[in-house]
Amino acid sequence: MIVVMKPGCTPADVQHVVDLVRQLGLRDHVIVGTDRTVIAAIGDKRTVDKGAIESAPMVDRVVPILAPYKVASREVKREPSVIRIGPSGAEIGGRKIGVIAGPCSVESEEQILTTARAVRAAGAIGLRGGAFKPRTNPYAFQGLGESGLKLLAAAREQTGLAVVTEVMSIDQVDLVAEYADVLQIGARNMQNFNLLRAVGACEKPVLLKRGMVASLEEFLLAAEYIINAGNPHVILCERGIRTCEEYVRNTLALAVVPAVKRESHLPILVDPSHGTGHAYMVPAMCKAAIAAGADGIIVEVHPDPQHALTDGAQSITHDTFAQTMQELAAVAHAVGRSI
Amino acid sequence: MIVVMKPGCTPADVQHVVDLVRQLGLRDHVIVGTDRTVIAAIGDKRTVDKGAIESAPMVDRVVPILAPYKVASREVKREPSVIRIGPSGAEIGGRKIGVIAGPCSVESEEQILTTARAVRAAGAIGLRGGAFKPRTNPYAFQGLGESGLKLLAAAREQTGLAVVTEVMSIDQVDLVAEYADVLQIGARNMQNFNLLRAVGACEKPVLLKRGMVASLEEFLLAAEYIINAGNPHVILCERGIRTCEEYVRNTLALAVVPAVKRESHLPILVDPSHGTGHAYMVPAMCKAAIAAGADGIIVEVHPDPQHALTDGAQSITHDTFAQTMQELAAVAHAVGRSI
Amino acid sequence: MIVVMKPGCTPADVQHVVDLVRQLGLRDHVIVGTDRTVIAAIGDKRTVDKGAIESAPMVDRVVPILAPYKVASREVKREPSVIRIGPSGAEIGGRKIGVIAGPCSVESEEQILTTARAVRAAGAIGLRGGAFKPRTNPYAFQGLGESGLKLLAAAREQTGLAVVTEVMSIDQVDLVAEYADVLQIGARNMQNFNLLRAVGACEKPVLLKRGMVASLEEFLLAAEYIINAGNPHVILCERGIRTCEEYVRNTLALAVVPAVKRESHLPILVDPSHGTGHAYMVPAMCKAAIAAGADGIIVEVHPDPQHALTDGAQSITHDTFAQTMQELAAVAHAVGRSI
Amino acid sequence: MIVVMKPGCTPADVQHVVDLVRQLGLRDHVIVGTDRTVIAAIGDKRTVDKGAIESAPMVDRVVPILAPYKVASREVKREPSVIRIGPSGAEIGGRKIGVIAGPCSVESEEQILTTARAVRAAGAIGLRGGAFKPRTNPYAFQGLGESGLKLLAAAREQTGLAVVTEVMSIDQVDLVAEYADVLQIGARNMQNFNLLRAVGACEKPVLLKRGMVASLEEFLLAAEYIINAGNPHVILCERGIRTCEEYVRNTLALAVVPAVKRESHLPILVDPSHGTGHAYMVPAMCKAAIAAGADGIIVEVHPDPQHALTDGAQSITHDTFAQTMQELAAVAHAVGRSI
Repeated sequence: MIVVMKPGCTPADVQHVVDLVRQLGLRDHVIVGTDRTVIAAIGDKRTVDKGAIESAPMVDRVVPILAPYKVASREVKREPSVIRIGPSGAEIGGRKIGVIAGPCSVESEEQILTTARAVRAAGAIGLRGGAFKPRTNPYAFQGLGESGLKLLAAAREQTGLAVVTEVMSIDQVDLVAEYADVLQIGARNMQNFNLLRAVGACEKPVLLKRGMVASLEEFLLAAEYIINAGNPHVILCERGIRTCEEYVRNTLALAVVPAVKRESHLPILVDPSHGTGHAYMVPAMCKAAIAAGADGIIVEVHPDPQHALTDGAQSITHDTFAQTMQELAAVAHAVGRSI
Repeated sequence: MIVVMKPGCTPADVQHVVDLVRQLGLRDHVIVGTDRTVIAAIGDKRTVDKGAIESAPMVDRVVPILAPYKVASREVKREPSVIRIGPSGAEIGGRKIGVIAGPCSVESEEQILTTARAVRAAGAIGLRGGAFKPRTNPYAFQGLGESGLKLLAAAREQTGLAVVTEVMSIDQVDLVAEYADVLQIGARNMQNFNLLRAVGACEKPVLLKRGMVASLEEFLLAAEYIINAGNPHVILCERGIRTCEEYVRNTLALAVVPAVKRESHLPILVDPSHGTGHAYMVPAMCKAAIAAGADGIIVEVHPDPQHALTDGAQSITHDTFAQTMQELAAVAHAVGRSI
Repeated sequence: MIVVMKPGCTPADVQHVVDLVRQLGLRDHVIVGTDRTVIAAIGDKRTVDKGAIESAPMVDRVVPILAPYKVASREVKREPSVIRIGPSGAEIGGRKIGVIAGPCSVESEEQILTTARAVRAAGAIGLRGGAFKPRTNPYAFQGLGESGLKLLAAAREQTGLAVVTEVMSIDQVDLVAEYADVLQIGARNMQNFNLLRAVGACEKPVLLKRGMVASLEEFLLAAEYIINAGNPHVILCERGIRTCEEYVRNTLALAVVPAVKRESHLPILVDPSHGTGHAYMVPAMCKAAIAAGADGIIVEVHPDPQHALTDGAQSITHDTFAQTMQELAAVAHAVGRSI
Repeated sequence: MIVVMKPGCTPADVQHVVDLVRQLGLRDHVIVGTDRTVIAAIGDKRTVDKGAIESAPMVDRVVPILAPYKVASREVKREPSVIRIGPSGAEIGGRKIGVIAGPCSVESEEQILTTARAVRAAGAIGLRGGAFKPRTNPYAFQGLGESGLKLLAAAREQTGLAVVTEVMSIDQVDLVAEYADVLQIGARNMQNFNLLRAVGACEKPVLLKRGMVASLEEFLLAAEYIINAGNPHVILCERGIRTCEEYVRNTLALAVVPAVKRESHLPILVDPSHGTGHAYMVPAMCKAAIAAGADGIIVEVHPDPQHALTDGAQSITHDTFAQTMQELAAVAHAVGRSI
């Protein structure tokens, strides 16, 4: 880290900071510039809170140099991680684009089976569907719970699709892991650190959605919690951030895809459904995600969005999905990949 | 809700929406305007997902009219709620300003007892201090756990201060409730709905921090989860939102104070420590919070911020706190309140 | 617009609002709902400030229904506008993707001519380059002014490329219009309404960059200022919005592309250079933009970014540009277009 | 600045950066850390674009150390600037709080004179009122122009208040300066650099509103443009930033007040009208602004907000203003100031 002193600091102020740096077990290196003095503190001490130095007299600010993530970073593992999911062992993170599709919520046997067959036929490798639903509104539909999980398992039985479903709290982890092929951590729980540790203790792959305004660093550190707990099978997912934009539910930040590819070995999917909030935008943003280099997409598909219990406005129909998959195949091919 | 049709919609399109509205158990009211047709859907159906109508043909958008919160709202309870905390039964939400102060983390017996005595002497009614710490960085100090809770209880014993400390997951609720007077829900957990329900099942008051970019509606709905689970003793807390501003850790959104006062009967505190991230701003923003009408503040105070294990940059010293309390008393008096 | 009354309003409160609505020349329509009364105000009065009604007693809020833009909207003109630029009359907004490339600033004859030839050879139809530069820092390079414009004109002479360059103030409009084929309005000037009117009085096409956090509505209304002043040749340009994201200079909001296509007949380009701030992200985001349906891109290309006077960090080299153009052609083909 | 190299960089990569640093006329200082090598570049070269170095091979990023503003900074001038405005020479930036009040737009002689007298009686020192109005919507009321200026001058004649009014473009500067005591630069024009230079060539004080999402650095650099052009009489004004918050028009970022006080000698006002968008919040936020240390407020006051041509929703009445002024006097006293 670099400690920037205020103008007018005295040698005693600098020495005081040097002492603090050494107390942290770091080496110091003082540079006297034309207008400012800075003190470089050298050494890897990820466990100490360096910000405390900001409260020393005549310190202007402290600039971190090292990113705090390690096992999620490309520095530690250069080749991309490929995660296998579901009964077929389909790959996420390799040359092939992986598409996960399905309704926001599991609503009924007919609904989930119909959609599972439709998305399978169109080329999906995974089936999404919520059994436990995090709802902003306590009066809204909260999901079918375990019976929803059983319907998802039945759909896997019939289609061979990998089941991707959300786990909302540590006491649900064992139950969800019993039925699901991939445990989804929702955006609201990206920094629910106890839950991250709990899914880190599982063997099932984890789909980690980016928090509502998570920085790239926070996103990778959340993955790091899971990996450090013993589970290296982490799939990242961009799902839009909250901004001032009024014409979307969230702003889909596709530049996070090349940024993740530069910083980390983990694969990344994109969720254009939550990432926009409007069904009419979903096909365009699916294509944009693949063109940007994403390893796949996760998209909401419903047999009858006008009667969906949740997220109807952003769910596409079976027909739109099938059409989009054809277009996606062309885009994937254009960027040297396939579906 | 109001369904706005696209220009050029046909009577059949309108009838289709009318049918959907009726299927939801709502009454319809069609208004044909100069440029647009809108359909008002009348009736209280907080449990249905009205957004689904947005996927009907020729629907432009759906505008909700009713706020979804109920028991947290002033419509249901007009007089302000006053919450009593700790052994002394000090009030939050009445005429008196309540100040809660203490370190970010409990670090040692000496640290917490010294600070408890100092903030008590300066006029605080509560002692804050983290025993379980949500840390972005998995390598950083994670708190003392139960032994931290015991130190907090010892400090209460000596000072009579109410102990306010964070609970991070449902399996910690019983333990934390055993020692704490107020259970704090951190910003990252504001939409951890299972945790909200769990603290809702306790009798201890809950300090609910606003999420990083939570809307006012989401904030009040989170409170509603707790109240609906049986615990009406909810204290709201503004702690800054994440924005593009670069000179602060968060942007302290003080206008949320009059907004909460208008919409809800719940009391609201302000946290200028997390709300700015810089100790030098804290006294000014404490005063601003009280002038804006907040029912109190929660502020980080440390005997030696330069050696704090966490949040040193935003912690003020005992002396600064004592000075700030004197100024706060003057501001409180100016707005018709007292400390 | 819809006026939503507070709960507990009296018939007199409603009548008062009805009177205000009628004073504005609008028709009223009162709907008494289960919990709320709303008053629909019917009629097109784009010139009045309807917000005033929000200050009437017992009014909760006013919800606008009609978008205020008109001549920029698809309601008024259904077929997409195609804008011809430069000596070749190359089209923006048709089936072909239009690529505009060049340095941030015109720095020297050699620099601009070399780059012009390189981007021409790779398939660009326009040459960008700033002669008058809006600089945040008053001490930074401010552009070559008129001699920069002359160099751009010389480059057009040699290559046939359309010259796209920024005009910063009304007193520069005539001068810039003398040399440029397309007048660029920068993001900081998107709501410089006097400048919008001034370029609206020209015949040259205008490239209108979206403001730093402009809403879609504000963006289209800015176009409307230009069109209403007599110049229908407006090309929109998404260049990223400012958000909390730390790993980019701006967040490129590609979903604005399908949103513009739905709301307006105007063509839209994407600027991935300003939209990300990092050269390494530019190729990926160029491809994503085209996949999302953009009508083209405008991208910063420099013969030697390490020595660029401005925007070196986000400029790509001639080689990277040529490579990107090949990939773009494949993506364009995949979405049914060509370069 | 500090150049941070990527891990795995070679001595040749480092030498290449050292060469680039020297070419910029800066001294270099290489520090080899445990995980990273950084190169400190020493010397003040505010005119060069240091970002270009980011495009050199194996450079991770470049961290600026020096703030680019100079004449606006406290480093250059330690004592606070006090600006005198209007016929009475009332001070902004001293111990007394300065209040500027009046309607959003000048609408008629009666309106402006009535309000001028009312705000004068309540203790204001300045009269605000727009003659040239920047309007997002081209169909909305655009102001009375010069006749509005004449009405403002007449109001000054009668009350002795300083007239504060907006200038939107360089061709209006002379005209507005003829009538106004303070030239206001609106938020949308904060980075209209040609306009900043034009008002910098006047002798009249300038009220510079913060841009919609301007950083602190950009805000002070905009002031620097004006000062460098010859006019040191700059008054800053916080008016809220655009964020994701839905219950306000803008988020009033009051922590900018202590930040400006730390970084700059310039006085700062707060505009709680634009800063919230809702009249009911204005009194609370006026008080909060003064408690936070602002040198005054600028607030919209209208004799009849329900019939205001512009900004009715955020304008307070004469009575509310008079009441607020009494409360403000108490708050000012509490923080050691007066009105």
